[in-house]
Amino acid sequence: MSFDYAGRLQRLQRSMGESDVDVTILSVGADLPYFAGYDAMPSERLTVLVVPVGGEPVLFVPLLEAPQVEPGVFETRSWTETDDPVSMATSVVSTPGRVAVGDHMWSVFLTRFQKEWTGAEWIPASELTSSLRLRKEPEEIDLLRQAAHGVDRAMGRIPADVAFAGRTEKDIARDLAELTIEEGHDSADFTIVASGPNGASPHHHAGGRVIEPGDLVVCDFGGRIGGYCSDSTRTFAVGEPSEEQREVHQVVLEANEAGRRAARPGVRCQDVDTAARGVIEHAGHGEHFIHRTGHGIGLEVHEHPYIVKGNETILEPGMAFSVEPGIYLPERFGVRIEDIVVCIDDGVESLNSSSRDLIIVG
Amino acid sequence: MSFDYAGRLQRLQRSMGESDVDVTILSVGADLPYFAGYDAMPSERLTVLVVPVGGEPVLFVPLLEAPQVEPGVFETRSWTETDDPVSMATSVVSTPGRVAVGDHMWSVFLTRFQKEWTGAEWIPASELTSSLRLRKEPEEIDLLRQAAHGVDRAMGRIPADVAFAGRTEKDIARDLAELTIEEGHDSADFTIVASGPNGASPHHHAGGRVIEPGDLVVCDFGGRIGGYCSDSTRTFAVGEPSEEQREVHQVVLEANEAGRRAARPGVRCQDVDTAARGVIEHAGHGEHFIHRTGHGIGLEVHEHPYIVKGNETILEPGMAFSVEPGIYLPERFGVRIEDIVVCIDDGVESLNSSSRDLIIVG
Repeated sequence: MSFDYAGRLQRLQRSMGESDVDVTILSVGADLPYFAGYDAMPSERLTVLVVPVGGEPVLFVPLLEAPQVEPGVFETRSWTETDDPVSMATSVVSTPGRVAVGDHMWSVFLTRFQKEWTGAEWIPASELTSSLRLRKEPEEIDLLRQAAHGVDRAMGRIPADVAFAGRTEKDIARDLAELTIEEGHDSADFTIVASGPNGASPHHHAGGRVIEPGDLVVCDFGGRIGGYCSDSTRTFAVGEPSEEQREVHQVVLEANEAGRRAARPGVRCQDVDTAARGVIEHAGHGEHFIHRTGHGIGLEVHEHPYIVKGNETILEPGMAFSVEPGIYLPERFGVRIEDIVVCIDDGVESLNSSSRDLIIVG
Repeated sequence: MSFDYAGRLQRLQRSMGESDVDVTILSVGADLPYFAGYDAMPSERLTVLVVPVGGEPVLFVPLLEAPQVEPGVFETRSWTETDDPVSMATSVVSTPGRVAVGDHMWSVFLTRFQKEWTGAEWIPASELTSSLRLRKEPEEIDLLRQAAHGVDRAMGRIPADVAFAGRTEKDIARDLAELTIEEGHDSADFTIVASGPNGASPHHHAGGRVIEPGDLVVCDFGGRIGGYCSDSTRTFAVGEPSEEQREVHQVVLEANEAGRRAARPGVRCQDVDTAARGVIEHAGHGEHFIHRTGHGIGLEVHEHPYIVKGNETILEPGMAFSVEPGIYLPERFGVRIEDIVVCIDDGVESLNSSSRDLIIVG
């Protein structure tokens, strides 16, 4: 998949001009692959694209990684193990007044740049780039859809292919990662398997707990296809669930539906949160929904727009994000149901469509 | 495995006092688990430990991750989705003069901290922490040894368990990751499989190239056990190697041995590089050894000390690092042989001991 990097860079430089930014420096994180088609390896060896507001960008890359750089919309200069890449990079632009820095650039490099470009004002690059990346291009949506459908197929195979009772969360996580790869992903990037009381910890790391009949198990996993992310959550019951487990699951399901129904062009991000949260509050579980309703998704599994109170960003066609309400009952159990949706003209397309029911597994 | 975090934090605070640092802020990266036993999830939600030069550190953590925090050598304060964690964190210390920032903290957070703590001087935390983390404790060396032995067993199984010819680099990479897990690792973190001409690219990503008889294949992989990293490289021949391939491999093997032999307490890091590099230069391949000889290893796969020209750090017992010379012939092939060693009283212990010969695989 190749995108119009030249056009994207032009839009970035135009935005820089409008915001009086003299230079943008991009290193690890998704801005660099988005605007230039190159992905920097997170490393103590600096890779950085220097984008002046006018003129050709220059990519500085460690010599030993230079063979991986394909000719692109930038000039490439490699540095050897005894060079100082920051002094090389800062020589491209002298005394900038305002610098945009890739959000994920390591601080150890930013503090070095700040010693060279003294007196500059520093802003996060996302202040420019997030609005350019918010609306996905059709090819990006295709990749998000492929990834979502892959994780749907993996989710659909769980009842038949994954044994739960008597095995550890880690065992299940390994199975889910394998299914993710088997169903077409380039990589399986994360697998939350949170069973029984661990389900009340939304970001629980799959651990050594042995799963028992009567548990609910929150399975939240995803990976990448062509650089684009999948991320879906379903909650399974190990054996017959209790009445309370069924009720809580039903509330979360209705909250998920309410969130997806509320999302359409013209609506603010926070309104989607309010719609999903309202269902849970009405059921008396407001205090047990301890996170925002969702996050944008694309080259990053979490990116703008965030579906959270206070975010007044207006939804537009092409925006892609998760709707993932949950209820977390401390020391007892948790339920979360997560879909990735993309905003279309009259609502959203849910890229995920695997069963959202409380499916019983063995 | 639990370490003496209280003692480590005391040493950090003492070092801060000696360097006139008023506060250290640690987020993602290995300093936080090293000094406090907690690992921050890389995320747009900030996790940060604020360590004042005197007094108890405070960990700020997103509410939804608070259940994962075990009581530690710090106070924990959680923040909700509508709080501003940076203004909460900066309230712990007012108007610091000098701030040490964890090397890997995302720039988007550092620029926010800089808006709150105006006028402060900012230095990378590694200026304090690397000298404290350089000499591994016996329990750390045990974990490094476990990880190295696990990857050795995986390496030893390659000739019998992994088919090369007719399969892609990605296929091999998947096999190596599985062997790494089967041999006791908690995670398989990276797998470089660089075949034929791709072997000339030291950090090549395993790709779709189909491996052919006559190829050399550089296999460089590792993972983590108990948080500590493995990282080893061997080069395999698919079918009978050519005379030239054998010769180049022999030079790299002798360079690896020379590097390991040169390393002992009292020697400078750069002297180990010189010893390994000298063998390769003497064989006329100096220009084809395009990276430093090695890197430290511990909670990070690359950390101090770096075995590179210009690094005058004196080796001491307990320092752990790689010795990994290579020869890279553009568009033809590459060879690298990498071992992790730990400095002992009269030399080094090589934690890796799988065969370094040019083993023929099918």
